[in-house]
Amino acid sequence: VKFAGTHLLVDLWGAEKLDSPELIDATLREGALAAGATILHSHFHHFTPNGGVSGVVVLAESHISIHTWPERNYAAIDIFMCGVCDPYKAIPFLRAAFSPSDVQVGEQRRGVTA
Amino acid sequence: VKFAGTHLLVDLWGAEKLDSPELIDATLREGALAAGATILHSHFHHFTPNGGVSGVVVLAESHISIHTWPERNYAAIDIFMCGVCDPYKAIPFLRAAFSPSDVQVGEQRRGVTA
Repeated sequence: VKFAGTHLLVDLWGAEKLDSPELIDATLREGALAAGATILHSHFHHFTPNGGVSGVVVLAESHISIHTWPERNYAAIDIFMCGVCDPYKAIPFLRAAFSPSDVQVGEQRRGVTA
Repeated sequence: VKFAGTHLLVDLWGAEKLDSPELIDATLREGALAAGATILHSHFHHFTPNGGVSGVVVLAESHISIHTWPERNYAAIDIFMCGVCDPYKAIPFLRAAFSPSDVQVGEQRRGVTA
């Protein structure tokens, strides 16, 4: 079986500091590099009044996206990587930065062919 | 049950014109607007030598991302929208632009709380 890439859907619950675009940017970049990915572009938007952050890091090997709801202490993160990258290696950086009480990880293999 | 957003994982197979950043940008924008979303930012990267395109449209209501493999006629698209947007309304624009022979759609509800 061949597949185009591994797509992790990561939900953080009980998380902190989800209103900081700077911390989020730095954390996703650290995670991307630890996973072995090459960063091409990043963009983050800071919402008012709730302080939520939406953004993405575009990689040579796909992308990482994040959307945060600080008022619910919840963040929805996608880590999609193809090639030899290991997207799971980004997760410890999320735990360290945002101190979630619970982390849910779902794995989807995209582009599977026999 | 409340949830933060609806996340569609859309895989196009047997698709055409997956090497055109301009067509991809226009198509994702049309789809975002048809779904009722507000576009904040977009960025697309065109790879050589295969002509693949990776990119994202950041929305006030989350994001649309795409990664294409023209040599396999395959594209992996995510349409993640919260609020009153209907992400399914973007799919006809993907069909019209890229003429896929098969479209697979998976739905994930992100941030579900009782």
